[in-house]
Amino acid sequence: MLFEIIEGGVLAAEGFTAAATCAGIKQDGILDMVLIHSDRPAAAAATLTQNVFRAAPTYVTQAAVANGVAQTIIVNSGNANCATGSEGLANARRMGELAAELTGVPAADTIVCSTGRIGVPLPMDKVEAGIHTLAGELSREDPVKIAKGILTTDTVEKISTTRFAVPSGRAGVPPATVHLGAICKGAGMICPNMATMLCFITTDLAIDADLLKTSLQEAVKYSFNCCSVDGDMSTNDTVAILANGAAGNAPLTSASDEGYAAFRAALGHVTKDLAQQIVRDGEEVSKFLEIVVQGAADYDTAHALAHQLATYLLFQTCLYGGDFNWGRVAAALGSSMLPFDPGKMSIEWQGITCWNDGEPQPFNQAAAEARLEEHDQGIIIDLKSGDAVCTYWTNDITPEYVSYNAH
Amino acid sequence: MLFEIIEGGVLAAEGFTAAATCAGIKQDGILDMVLIHSDRPAAAAATLTQNVFRAAPTYVTQAAVANGVAQTIIVNSGNANCATGSEGLANARRMGELAAELTGVPAADTIVCSTGRIGVPLPMDKVEAGIHTLAGELSREDPVKIAKGILTTDTVEKISTTRFAVPSGRAGVPPATVHLGAICKGAGMICPNMATMLCFITTDLAIDADLLKTSLQEAVKYSFNCCSVDGDMSTNDTVAILANGAAGNAPLTSASDEGYAAFRAALGHVTKDLAQQIVRDGEEVSKFLEIVVQGAADYDTAHALAHQLATYLLFQTCLYGGDFNWGRVAAALGSSMLPFDPGKMSIEWQGITCWNDGEPQPFNQAAAEARLEEHDQGIIIDLKSGDAVCTYWTNDITPEYVSYNAH
Repeated sequence: MLFEIIEGGVLAAEGFTAAATCAGIKQDGILDMVLIHSDRPAAAAATLTQNVFRAAPTYVTQAAVANGVAQTIIVNSGNANCATGSEGLANARRMGELAAELTGVPAADTIVCSTGRIGVPLPMDKVEAGIHTLAGELSREDPVKIAKGILTTDTVEKISTTRFAVPSGRAGVPPATVHLGAICKGAGMICPNMATMLCFITTDLAIDADLLKTSLQEAVKYSFNCCSVDGDMSTNDTVAILANGAAGNAPLTSASDEGYAAFRAALGHVTKDLAQQIVRDGEEVSKFLEIVVQGAADYDTAHALAHQLATYLLFQTCLYGGDFNWGRVAAALGSSMLPFDPGKMSIEWQGITCWNDGEPQPFNQAAAEARLEEHDQGIIIDLKSGDAVCTYWTNDITPEYVSYNAH
Repeated sequence: MLFEIIEGGVLAAEGFTAAATCAGIKQDGILDMVLIHSDRPAAAAATLTQNVFRAAPTYVTQAAVANGVAQTIIVNSGNANCATGSEGLANARRMGELAAELTGVPAADTIVCSTGRIGVPLPMDKVEAGIHTLAGELSREDPVKIAKGILTTDTVEKISTTRFAVPSGRAGVPPATVHLGAICKGAGMICPNMATMLCFITTDLAIDADLLKTSLQEAVKYSFNCCSVDGDMSTNDTVAILANGAAGNAPLTSASDEGYAAFRAALGHVTKDLAQQIVRDGEEVSKFLEIVVQGAADYDTAHALAHQLATYLLFQTCLYGGDFNWGRVAAALGSSMLPFDPGKMSIEWQGITCWNDGEPQPFNQAAAEARLEEHDQGIIIDLKSGDAVCTYWTNDITPEYVSYNAH
């Protein structure tokens, strides 16, 4: 392993403080605002939703990271500040300006995020009071409370933290110990394109902003862009990373630098870990599924097929019900309309090969249905046409999911 | 009106006979096979699913209509004959050959369709016995029984029938009376691309095969390709039309021929009527929704936006639950990633304008939720960017839909 798994979330990295509070946007007593702050300017990058109807704060965040530097993150849950028009955009800007002022950073260096119901104006009196409270409570204590502060319909906080070594770059000085930790939220309206839900990553790594951006894009591609709860892309998706250099390593400026491999592996681990945590905490789900599409001619084909299966409602319902209806896997893959060849591929579900090279394969139906009762499910699609692989995580859809989202 | 609405389904047109029987593919006593026959060769066209994993009979049908002539249609329900490999293809061919032999037509002139569970071999002994029974029972009686014979999870038969006049082409001879009737099935796995479910249309119109094909493609585009129950494209989708010329009209050879407008209108009516019947009979649905996307720069954009909204699960759940959560309409439209401008468009739901030109619009929430209790719902999206319009039909998703498809 190029990295160790530790605890600490967004407070593991040196130089970061944070606070969470109940500003009253959600019901009384539920945490609904979070402030994360670096004691020095940090290299910054973010990936944002591609939803055309994206929320006001995503525009503020896009501007904040445009020059590759940011220092403060302000977040509220309980209200998405989306489809709120010009007033919504002014409110998102005001959130950033106030957080910047109270943490002593330029307004342009503040990332702003909101999550919750769409189409409802932000209660700015509560939001502004909340930011004042948060600025007075910044500390390095209680990373779990920070993780709880950004949740909406999630049932558990989602944290992932790593530690790794990067050369100090000075003769006789041992490698720097770098921390990289993250929190995220998401349980419904999860079907990413570019990024999904909210995720905040802090690290004390010293790294060039362009390299940080490239690294984040790659990590998101293979993690948050490979998970779906309900096939519904959100309006507020944001993954943001701050790298403040407090670890004292020789700044990474190229993917060939010593230590970059460890950072890349750690970032990949944290983002994939959180993507899977989201799916496991999907709204009212009862099963977790890992789909591997391998042997594809290219990654995009593998990803599109995995995504098609992961979001085919009739497959998600039979996954829930325990009907080993592998024909729906075939129907789902075929509905992609991608030019794969059913005559040269295999479908394996829970270790049972159902289809191979154009012919259905015999198996014991009762044994298959017994395997389907397991919580963790795996499907492997082998296209036998190349080397590309996509691993994708999803869950079942339950009657309770529908009831939950109906009201 | 260029046509009249009558009764009679696929038996309204002269020269057609049909039969339905219980072959035992489904449970005892439930109709599961249908034979439709023209007493003379008919111009024929079909649109088929674009699912890559499409069923064996769709290949047989594709070959049957390739030369623009067919005479017999053989159908079974209860088994899709899909993902059944080389044996499945041989079985589909055998169905067509036997039906052709017993109705005295060339094997190449028989359309073959199957619908039902995927991945299970056809019970050919029952199928062959069924075809023998059907061939002995062909008649012009009971079009409702024929419509019932092709159903699977549908709760009601789906029939639409019209009558219109086309010039006889002979001096002093009054216009010919032409009949056009259709049946279809479909309630789940409904999300068309090119065509959906099974639909059989018969007419005694005399028409050139190429013009028939063009007409069918146009009708399908604005009907079955504009409806969705669950966003899941099927493997067996087939819409087939036979036009046997028994009405004695002057054969239509061009879209500018007198009488073509009436045929086009009648075909458009029948296919749209059936598409809406499918959505209204969607598995365990509780509401019907018509989405109109207007003011689009082109039809494809309008269709893509309507489709995106119709299949956005979180929208379909709030439609079920009575939550007037118009923000999910915005989120769904945006998730299309199409280049429309939220700053120049409007969203109207049950007559209530929620969003216009970049700003949310005030409305009475209680009044809106009262309107949401109505069974028939309407949403109008105006992009204010052109003249293209798409009308699309869908329904809500209920907890009962999930339970129904889980087992």
